[in-house]
Amino acid sequence: MLKKVGRRDFIKTAGIAGAALAGGSLLAGCSNAASPNAGDVKWDEETDVLVVGTGFAGLAAAIEAKKAGADVLVIEKMPTTGGNSAINGGDMAAVGTKLQEDAGVEDSIDSMVKDMLVAGLFYNHVDRVKMVAEKSKEAIEWCTDLGVQFTKLNFHGGHSVPRTNTTVNATGADIVKAELAKLDELGIPIKTNVKLVKFISDEDERVVGIEARDGYKIGDEESGNTVFIKAKKAVVLASGGFSNDLQMRVIHEPRLTEELTSTNHQGATGEALREALKLKAMDVHMDWIQLGPWTSPDEKGFGFAPQFCERLVGHAPMIDPETGKRFINETGNRKVRADAMLALGRDTIILGDADAVARQVVLKTLESGMKNGVIREFNSLEELAAGYNIPVGPFMAEIKRWNSFVANKKDEDFGCMIFDDAGPTQKAPFYATKLWPKVHHTMGGLVTNLQSQVINQDYEPIKGLYAAGEVTGGTHGAVRLGSCAITDCIVFGRIAGQEAAKEQV
Amino acid sequence: MLKKVGRRDFIKTAGIAGAALAGGSLLAGCSNAASPNAGDVKWDEETDVLVVGTGFAGLAAAIEAKKAGADVLVIEKMPTTGGNSAINGGDMAAVGTKLQEDAGVEDSIDSMVKDMLVAGLFYNHVDRVKMVAEKSKEAIEWCTDLGVQFTKLNFHGGHSVPRTNTTVNATGADIVKAELAKLDELGIPIKTNVKLVKFISDEDERVVGIEARDGYKIGDEESGNTVFIKAKKAVVLASGGFSNDLQMRVIHEPRLTEELTSTNHQGATGEALREALKLKAMDVHMDWIQLGPWTSPDEKGFGFAPQFCERLVGHAPMIDPETGKRFINETGNRKVRADAMLALGRDTIILGDADAVARQVVLKTLESGMKNGVIREFNSLEELAAGYNIPVGPFMAEIKRWNSFVANKKDEDFGCMIFDDAGPTQKAPFYATKLWPKVHHTMGGLVTNLQSQVINQDYEPIKGLYAAGEVTGGTHGAVRLGSCAITDCIVFGRIAGQEAAKEQV
Repeated sequence: MLKKVGRRDFIKTAGIAGAALAGGSLLAGCSNAASPNAGDVKWDEETDVLVVGTGFAGLAAAIEAKKAGADVLVIEKMPTTGGNSAINGGDMAAVGTKLQEDAGVEDSIDSMVKDMLVAGLFYNHVDRVKMVAEKSKEAIEWCTDLGVQFTKLNFHGGHSVPRTNTTVNATGADIVKAELAKLDELGIPIKTNVKLVKFISDEDERVVGIEARDGYKIGDEESGNTVFIKAKKAVVLASGGFSNDLQMRVIHEPRLTEELTSTNHQGATGEALREALKLKAMDVHMDWIQLGPWTSPDEKGFGFAPQFCERLVGHAPMIDPETGKRFINETGNRKVRADAMLALGRDTIILGDADAVARQVVLKTLESGMKNGVIREFNSLEELAAGYNIPVGPFMAEIKRWNSFVANKKDEDFGCMIFDDAGPTQKAPFYATKLWPKVHHTMGGLVTNLQSQVINQDYEPIKGLYAAGEVTGGTHGAVRLGSCAITDCIVFGRIAGQEAAKEQV
Repeated sequence: MLKKVGRRDFIKTAGIAGAALAGGSLLAGCSNAASPNAGDVKWDEETDVLVVGTGFAGLAAAIEAKKAGADVLVIEKMPTTGGNSAINGGDMAAVGTKLQEDAGVEDSIDSMVKDMLVAGLFYNHVDRVKMVAEKSKEAIEWCTDLGVQFTKLNFHGGHSVPRTNTTVNATGADIVKAELAKLDELGIPIKTNVKLVKFISDEDERVVGIEARDGYKIGDEESGNTVFIKAKKAVVLASGGFSNDLQMRVIHEPRLTEELTSTNHQGATGEALREALKLKAMDVHMDWIQLGPWTSPDEKGFGFAPQFCERLVGHAPMIDPETGKRFINETGNRKVRADAMLALGRDTIILGDADAVARQVVLKTLESGMKNGVIREFNSLEELAAGYNIPVGPFMAEIKRWNSFVANKKDEDFGCMIFDDAGPTQKAPFYATKLWPKVHHTMGGLVTNLQSQVINQDYEPIKGLYAAGEVTGGTHGAVRLGSCAITDCIVFGRIAGQEAAKEQV
């Protein structure tokens, strides 16, 4: 079903970047009109700390700002809360957690820092990485205190050890719901369908509020009414990434045309980030846009394939159906794997046997994935080969070879990590899913300091403006290591809320 | 003399990025103070088109704007004109030139486009690449009309064919001098020691002039006097890259600390680019910063090693002195080679025999390089091995192997292109230079359209502002292909001047 993506196609399709500029289409809601003078604004509403966005970071900021004594208002442009966080896989990397202790995993902050830097190709802002690793355990405990249950310790490709704490239902919604319950308990109002249109600054270039559209409906930039919301202390921008912003993404990475879909929710667009850049904010690493190597063309969005695939790596092989052979280190980082898949230019599969799937894959993932058809069940390897048009001879030989690697705990072909509890792929039934990359995460964004203040082109904090989560850049460098995003969001979201609350009115 | 650069060092040193932010040092001259209202400014001077910078692009813009009937003023912050262009190697890629015709080289615009995209990892804005390739021949002819002599057709790593036109003295100064002579002929004034401090815009966000420091001395931000220069039609920003801007470069690429030097002149800093970003301009590819793989630790700045090295690739081998073996495709692109050298973590050498050097290296390069000690002469390969502490046995075997590849016109080890006129490395004397990368070119910069207008965060042109040359991004994508920068500068510099002159006063 997929067209072969070769360099020729990239050359051809990449032309859209130029077209995007030549077209010069003006996104509605991004008016060039000068901001009203802050002194002249008739505010419709006011609060101490205004939080934009209801993902992990925004909700963490809201909770902390309220706890620190500030009045808080949260706005969300979508009709529902949670943004991309709600459809995330619920995997959170941390060092020294109870799950690691129970499993006897030895880990260290230095190890997590190093893994993030290696994956990030050393583009990471090291102080941020250290902060995330150092506060990762506390971030897990903060979630646990909210009622989040982390029930399984998992391994993600690119980490030195298993350090990924997965929530009970293997979804970020487990965390978002707990945060929302806390907001409710604290009496923090959330207004959905309210979209930030622009920031309003005073003469001292301090952000003092925003212009917004109340009653906004995604896709209709004329919807809703203009309102002005005053933020007496600060605005915390936690508006997420721009994986679904085609115009923005092809400027920074021209290959990522409409031929690649995204795992993200519809609202993952970059207009709020661009509004912040109009305040002379500095951006970084905007062209590093992560593809998920574990998504399936057989379902929309993030889907169930990622949870299936990521639980199986290190326990089961990925296969190129055309040759029946493996083609990549299954535990390599996302970029290595996605690049290899793009270079191959066709769908691949991952398969696991009954034991591996029972041991590794969350039952809900398996059931949901089978129900929507993305995960398929086969009574034998031969039947699986037939199901994906894999040449059966080479495939059976490759599985035999893989099983010998598993027996020796050493992959001689690609250096895949093989876990201690991994077993041979031999017991029916067998489960498999097709894989093809999707646009998943934008590493780049606003430059912020360790207090989550947004930094301007003079390397100074913009007064009254904080940011956290995917709208910021620097933590993940060039390539985000899997399961480090939630940690980043919670750590810097909390800091943003704490620091915003300290601002003098 | 070089310390080994391993990942551990990068982890350690990369901490500076965070430090740069935490320090929050304010560069003098980059004040946050609000711009004076354009209507209130008492202009000290006025012109139609104000050009900032005197490199290839700025001078080309000045000439074209004047030819189109505009009054033009050029400012330069340094005491001398030419910027980085004057110390450039004078290599200009173009398709279908007289030198290609004389040499019987078959080439095409598509081939140049493809080579630039492959080198640029397909991050390039394709329309820009096409424009550069299509107008490359015209750009060469424009230079020739100014009196520039291109006397040799050379090959640069990453190009499919020889398409690099080199000036008679193998220096960009040959082009800059010809441009300066034209400015003189046209009566265009150039003011040196005048530094742009900030842009001044009117209420409609049109750039109408600048605030500058007249009498500025590099390194002393308090030097000179404040002046206001009105640009009735437009400002053309051609202020170059930021290879020598440590604070800026470690934010975008934290590995590039003070442990790496630069080939660039002292003024290659990014404050003018950042001033443009304060006008809500959009930047792109800021984190792709090119290292020159052909620089030597035995001389400062760009030096003579690059001209020696780049003439010899495809004719002579590069050797790791510790093993005596080759380690890279010598005709690979700059990034491939620089990354391999960083991974190796120690100085390497390139050597050529008497025939290769006589045939390929410009005499002036050889003489100057030998005089300053960066190029060394040896009476035998054994003597050369001793001179660089190379194990002689493996080295002699490797040279024999290389010579067999040359005889067969096929490198079986690394796939280096071996040119038709390449001969074996065997005839004394032998010449060699040590190599270690230096920061050379910043691929990223302002997003501009095909009219050289600077694009803002709403994807619209900023009125009254044009940019060309290294201060812009998009043409080279992730990795600039060697010898394509001058072409980009001349093509888009000319366009900027032509378009700026068309603006209505």
